[in-house]
Amino acid sequence: MRKSLKVVTIGGGSSYTPELIEGFIKRYEEFPLTDLWLVDIEAGKEKLEIVGAMAQRMVKAAGIDCTVHLTLDRREALKNADFVTTQLRAGQLSARVLDERIPLSHGMIGQETNGAGGIFNALRTVPVILDIVEDMKELCPDAWLINFANPAGMVTEAVLRYGNWPKVVGLCNIPVNAVVNEAELLGEAPEKLFFQFAGINHMHWHTVMDSKGVDRTDELIKLMYGTGTNTEIVANIKDNNLIFEQVENLHMVPCPYHNYYYHTDKMLAEELADFEVNGTRAEKVKQIEAELFALYKDPQLDYKPKQLAERGGARYSEAACETITSIYNDKRTTMTVSTRNNGTVKDLPDDCAVEVTCTLTGNGPVPYNFGSFKPQERGLLQLMKAMEQLTIEAAVTGDRGTLLQALTINPLVTSGDVAKQVMEEMLEAHKEFLPAFFK
Amino acid sequence: MRKSLKVVTIGGGSSYTPELIEGFIKRYEEFPLTDLWLVDIEAGKEKLEIVGAMAQRMVKAAGIDCTVHLTLDRREALKNADFVTTQLRAGQLSARVLDERIPLSHGMIGQETNGAGGIFNALRTVPVILDIVEDMKELCPDAWLINFANPAGMVTEAVLRYGNWPKVVGLCNIPVNAVVNEAELLGEAPEKLFFQFAGINHMHWHTVMDSKGVDRTDELIKLMYGTGTNTEIVANIKDNNLIFEQVENLHMVPCPYHNYYYHTDKMLAEELADFEVNGTRAEKVKQIEAELFALYKDPQLDYKPKQLAERGGARYSEAACETITSIYNDKRTTMTVSTRNNGTVKDLPDDCAVEVTCTLTGNGPVPYNFGSFKPQERGLLQLMKAMEQLTIEAAVTGDRGTLLQALTINPLVTSGDVAKQVMEEMLEAHKEFLPAFFK
Amino acid sequence: MRKSLKVVTIGGGSSYTPELIEGFIKRYEEFPLTDLWLVDIEAGKEKLEIVGAMAQRMVKAAGIDCTVHLTLDRREALKNADFVTTQLRAGQLSARVLDERIPLSHGMIGQETNGAGGIFNALRTVPVILDIVEDMKELCPDAWLINFANPAGMVTEAVLRYGNWPKVVGLCNIPVNAVVNEAELLGEAPEKLFFQFAGINHMHWHTVMDSKGVDRTDELIKLMYGTGTNTEIVANIKDNNLIFEQVENLHMVPCPYHNYYYHTDKMLAEELADFEVNGTRAEKVKQIEAELFALYKDPQLDYKPKQLAERGGARYSEAACETITSIYNDKRTTMTVSTRNNGTVKDLPDDCAVEVTCTLTGNGPVPYNFGSFKPQERGLLQLMKAMEQLTIEAAVTGDRGTLLQALTINPLVTSGDVAKQVMEEMLEAHKEFLPAFFK
Amino acid sequence: MRKSLKVVTIGGGSSYTPELIEGFIKRYEEFPLTDLWLVDIEAGKEKLEIVGAMAQRMVKAAGIDCTVHLTLDRREALKNADFVTTQLRAGQLSARVLDERIPLSHGMIGQETNGAGGIFNALRTVPVILDIVEDMKELCPDAWLINFANPAGMVTEAVLRYGNWPKVVGLCNIPVNAVVNEAELLGEAPEKLFFQFAGINHMHWHTVMDSKGVDRTDELIKLMYGTGTNTEIVANIKDNNLIFEQVENLHMVPCPYHNYYYHTDKMLAEELADFEVNGTRAEKVKQIEAELFALYKDPQLDYKPKQLAERGGARYSEAACETITSIYNDKRTTMTVSTRNNGTVKDLPDDCAVEVTCTLTGNGPVPYNFGSFKPQERGLLQLMKAMEQLTIEAAVTGDRGTLLQALTINPLVTSGDVAKQVMEEMLEAHKEFLPAFFK
Ligand SMILES: [Mn+2]
Ligand SMILES: [Mn+2]
Ligand SMILES: [Mn+2]
Ligand SMILES: [Mn+2]
Repeated sequence: MRKSLKVVTIGGGSSYTPELIEGFIKRYEEFPLTDLWLVDIEAGKEKLEIVGAMAQRMVKAAGIDCTVHLTLDRREALKNADFVTTQLRAGQLSARVLDERIPLSHGMIGQETNGAGGIFNALRTVPVILDIVEDMKELCPDAWLINFANPAGMVTEAVLRYGNWPKVVGLCNIPVNAVVNEAELLGEAPEKLFFQFAGINHMHWHTVMDSKGVDRTDELIKLMYGTGTNTEIVANIKDNNLIFEQVENLHMVPCPYHNYYYHTDKMLAEELADFEVNGTRAEKVKQIEAELFALYKDPQLDYKPKQLAERGGARYSEAACETITSIYNDKRTTMTVSTRNNGTVKDLPDDCAVEVTCTLTGNGPVPYNFGSFKPQERGLLQLMKAMEQLTIEAAVTGDRGTLLQALTINPLVTSGDVAKQVMEEMLEAHKEFLPAFFK
Repeated sequence: MRKSLKVVTIGGGSSYTPELIEGFIKRYEEFPLTDLWLVDIEAGKEKLEIVGAMAQRMVKAAGIDCTVHLTLDRREALKNADFVTTQLRAGQLSARVLDERIPLSHGMIGQETNGAGGIFNALRTVPVILDIVEDMKELCPDAWLINFANPAGMVTEAVLRYGNWPKVVGLCNIPVNAVVNEAELLGEAPEKLFFQFAGINHMHWHTVMDSKGVDRTDELIKLMYGTGTNTEIVANIKDNNLIFEQVENLHMVPCPYHNYYYHTDKMLAEELADFEVNGTRAEKVKQIEAELFALYKDPQLDYKPKQLAERGGARYSEAACETITSIYNDKRTTMTVSTRNNGTVKDLPDDCAVEVTCTLTGNGPVPYNFGSFKPQERGLLQLMKAMEQLTIEAAVTGDRGTLLQALTINPLVTSGDVAKQVMEEMLEAHKEFLPAFFK
Repeated sequence: MRKSLKVVTIGGGSSYTPELIEGFIKRYEEFPLTDLWLVDIEAGKEKLEIVGAMAQRMVKAAGIDCTVHLTLDRREALKNADFVTTQLRAGQLSARVLDERIPLSHGMIGQETNGAGGIFNALRTVPVILDIVEDMKELCPDAWLINFANPAGMVTEAVLRYGNWPKVVGLCNIPVNAVVNEAELLGEAPEKLFFQFAGINHMHWHTVMDSKGVDRTDELIKLMYGTGTNTEIVANIKDNNLIFEQVENLHMVPCPYHNYYYHTDKMLAEELADFEVNGTRAEKVKQIEAELFALYKDPQLDYKPKQLAERGGARYSEAACETITSIYNDKRTTMTVSTRNNGTVKDLPDDCAVEVTCTLTGNGPVPYNFGSFKPQERGLLQLMKAMEQLTIEAAVTGDRGTLLQALTINPLVTSGDVAKQVMEEMLEAHKEFLPAFFK
Repeated sequence: MRKSLKVVTIGGGSSYTPELIEGFIKRYEEFPLTDLWLVDIEAGKEKLEIVGAMAQRMVKAAGIDCTVHLTLDRREALKNADFVTTQLRAGQLSARVLDERIPLSHGMIGQETNGAGGIFNALRTVPVILDIVEDMKELCPDAWLINFANPAGMVTEAVLRYGNWPKVVGLCNIPVNAVVNEAELLGEAPEKLFFQFAGINHMHWHTVMDSKGVDRTDELIKLMYGTGTNTEIVANIKDNNLIFEQVENLHMVPCPYHNYYYHTDKMLAEELADFEVNGTRAEKVKQIEAELFALYKDPQLDYKPKQLAERGGARYSEAACETITSIYNDKRTTMTVSTRNNGTVKDLPDDCAVEVTCTLTGNGPVPYNFGSFKPQERGLLQLMKAMEQLTIEAAVTGDRGTLLQALTINPLVTSGDVAKQVMEEMLEAHKEFLPAFFK
């Protein structure tokens, strides 16, 4: 009898699921998946059924021997799982609309991963993930947790520090996209370059070296920011050119989210203007999703439709499936993921989560040592990590003072009475998902 | 023959000088000063002569055997000095007007020690101080440098790291005022309390313990911020009540400059409104100074006029004279000063300047160990230190990228095109004092 | 009614007790002790009664209003204590005889605080102290624990890390003796010098600065080791001259126990020779003690007999009583004690015990920051701390592998079969006091 | 015209050279060497000519297009080199005889890499290597320095810290041998296991994980030390079984040199007994070398003779040639080498050399992050690093106090008069090679 290989995807009703399915189909030979469990909650039932049926058609069309299970019973699904992936959004897209809308209505950037929106996203998501971890301790104590639920860095750190679960990897598609796009810019094959990323999720920098040992970072910065024509890297961040004079001074390539911190004036102005006319990014995503689900309903569709690419998560499943396959096969793939710091980045606490370049072994990620940042990157990184740690603590304790502290030091939030006002409104708006704050 | 004891005060034409004179007169018995050299530059000649004459009258009235020398020849003055105090303002108050006015005209807080104004103040002051240090190496290699030129923390760090001069103490009147005012609030004698300050100049926090070993910090926070009636601590910072919910979460007392970071909305609104009506703080100070110098001209005046108190530097000379006397006499006075970190605050680099509670010995300040901050304080502190280090580096190198970086990460500066615009305007405005940028 | 002030001395039957009594009598005005409880165990009952009666006579003769209680009931004594001092020796002097005799019989230095003897002393003492701490949590949760039971550093660390009891101070008479003796050598009053000690108990180094800020350390080293006539500092360490060429290279004054590490050949040869002829130091101490107790029995004796000085613990009670009085009165006395590191010595873990110069406040010791050692001191210090941590862990767990590890890396123990042999013999010899190893 | 690829081997007259030649021949396709320069000094001329002629025969027999140059002119050789390997022994084997003989004659282990012998080996070698680095700065500023001259860790650190030459890799054959032998013991292919080594040269520990992510270290320790039949790993260290109870407690595999520290009694007894009968290891090596050179003289011999294996440097050239080829081709080979710490091992200074598992890129080794050791390994490692740093400092400064300090804290040296005696004798014996000490 064939050995069971079981993956559980929590938030399985996501519009991204077909990409994940495609990834597993493509890797079936090296990762002979027998059972894929798509799990969702009552509120996501309809979407789960639509995307689940499509997943089953994709698997059938691919002719692989793998069963796709659909369920609302998370504990049933977790039994003896080998890998658990979490791609849930606590409160669905409606919550994200509020995450973005409320700060914007107070004149702040509505950033759903690092701004006030990201803080509240964490407050809702962390308790759910910690519940999943408790179930895993009981039902699949040897499984790996592969998280791409945002804010991925804070969620990963919560699992490490409060869940005491070391077998977790946090994923984001930014590093994998950067590698592909920047190699192209440099006119080199990606595997001929050595990218070293360091920082935290959505706040990292990297260097790139070629096979002759030559540091190509400055050249790349010039190509990216020196000419006035930036490369579009992620769809959900505005193509805001950074100021060359400042980026050049880093001698490291920033990530797209640095636009929020390095070019705040333009980002805020654009978001506010866009908000006036079009509403939040979340509302646009909501519409894209509706269109995707309309497509998914087509009983003839048994492959990933090209429209999914517009959703803004390019290469997410690439990162996820490659990570899982690498751990399963001890492939020693080089990949940038969120993992326990343990001294890799000297400027951050040992026990926090960092997003760094690793080798993926049979026992998960082993980071390349990074050392210390220059003041250029160090200060902002340390500020953001402190903000993350306050947010995680607030999520676990439900303490308003800690939450207000996180908002106060967050660079995208204006501190003072307005921060407190935003806090009160958002607590009220998300009340249903924040029981710790309404005990 | 009586042994020479020589103090050199650079920026001796300052309106603060009478306070310093008063401090030395008061301490004459334990600090038998023989020669006080007041040094200034050509542009400050008139003020030097006015305040210098008054200083001579004060000394005479006090009946102490001490000569007050007035000179524009710094090198002449420095010969064999025992203590050198620096209270200069590079570019005088006119430069401070620009430091505040230009950022405000772009909708940013015009902060002359930590904001864009502070950055440019450092750019002008650091090269002057490093020149003084070079002279000291030659002319008075055993002297102590007591700096109160702002931004005092950055200036002190520049002396330590770029001047390689370890015998420097950076001073500010905030800690000494906090001790007096807060002891009063708690109904205790200051010497019965143990205050431990840690952080950097104008960005520090402290705890307070009473003689029974009881931590009184939370009680003090409640008294200061919980009742709606804040105590006015320094005259040049608006009496802006912090939000109790947030400050309470620190379990440490912030310093007055935290208003800029913890209550940005109100501070900005007030400064902008005030600016519309009254112009900058610098302009008000200019007027106060004019009035003071009118008083100083009175040949009958031989004591510190009470109007000086309104100038906003209460207990500056107290801090300065006490520091000098303590080093001279190995008094082991407890004092909070800027000195080399050396691990005192684990969250900051070893070789940077920190403002921490010390014992003043015959060999200068020996800090009490502090350890690590909580994320509450840590992130903001680390950000500000990185900002300071970029500023100092820019001051020394004249590199625009580094300067733009400092502005970009400064929480009081809006990053992006507007930051670059502010930079260009300020570089142009202060051109005369920034030769490193116009080589 | 007069307020109760209660001190409990565990190991109260010690021959040192009269010195402690003398210390309290001398400080009665600033430390109005109402009740001193001398506690011992059944095996020490006779000694407790003898020395206890003498203590009562001393108190009576002094005419102070303080009751000396004698008891074998530790829990009764601990109720509502203000200070608890621990000067116990688990297994009495007979155990120390074995601590020294067994290693010596295998050709190793029989060192009862840092060598194999010290390791077994810790194995016996740590569980007793942790029991006391458990009682204190229940019976006197606000009390300070002042420990002088050896090995004082390891015992203090065990209380901090395994007992989770922060209100502990570890004491040794070496620093206080060094201050007195070395000031005399330098021809200065002790209070005119600033001694900064850093390291761990019985493995520390210090510098000394005079009131002019001049570092006098090198001069002192020359006086102590350069002339061929060393000063006798502690009676229980042989007056073994260190080699000037090596000590001079430290630019720090080592402690007397460094003889064991810096002059191993001579120390070992002397100990072995002495052992052949006279037996162990413990046996000599036993004899001295017998003579002391004979004296103490004299119903006329109501003062500390001068013979106690020969016992080798000069100024122990000085250190203890001064520490207690300083905490009680928030005296801010400068004292070198064992306390939590918290970054004071950068080369050692934050949560370990270090012996460093502190100010004694109402909330206990606040260390002066030290920073990093040079390689000269660093390596040996780090080795000894690791050895201590293994020993403490072995004491708590009863794990033989961990114990053998501690012996293996201890520089006074020859590693290999002989270390294992020593371990087996000592475990057997002390079986009664090592229940964790014989579960 | 074919592109030049030039390797310079300093100490080219070594008996190991044929192994290196064999390594380059085997890798010719991926590393198309055009010129190999064998450099030696006057004293090694005869050996250079013998082994050089043999190298030329080997290259010819292999039919590769590569010229072997022999020279005593180091600067001529270094011009435009791509890789420089250093395998010199300052003072030749005669010096090693003294390195071992003198300590043994005083009853100490004559260890030529970590003991008193190793200290003097460093004193002779470091200045020579620093001279080579100065030449490289001028003549081949882009070349990599691949050092296997012992003590390889100290020499590498000297190049990094005093030579300020970052492009250096320190090599030893112990890790590569451990990988091969231990994989065999575990019944796995080496490439299916992930070995992580950390520490310093000849004082490191490692863990091993299999492709399923299972930590196999404890099982391996049991296989190696639990059964009484140790595997012979390096020929020049006695097959001394460590004590299972102690090694098991490490949960890391020690390196063969740990025998000296973990089983000192047996190692010393055996060395002394062997010394009585057979003289030093160096003298045996001298004889083996004489036999090897007799073989090399044979004009028919054009391949590496099997007798070379007995010399004790198995897989040295494997490590060297693989390192060079990997850097040249950016092969990303996993290899354990000595490189700059930079936080990889948190327990050691950032700027020191550590021996850790790395990926070899086109820009040299990038270490995997390690983190912190347990006290089990930490203390001894930190002691040895301090000893190394004192030795390097003494080598550079010629300061006797620093040298005596290094000897004093070295665990293989008995401290005190005997250490000073050994120092004096060895300084005298090696006078010719220690000009810094006889200025
Ligand atoms: Mn992401
Ligand atoms: Mn100030
Ligand atoms: Mn002691
Ligand atoms: Mn080796």
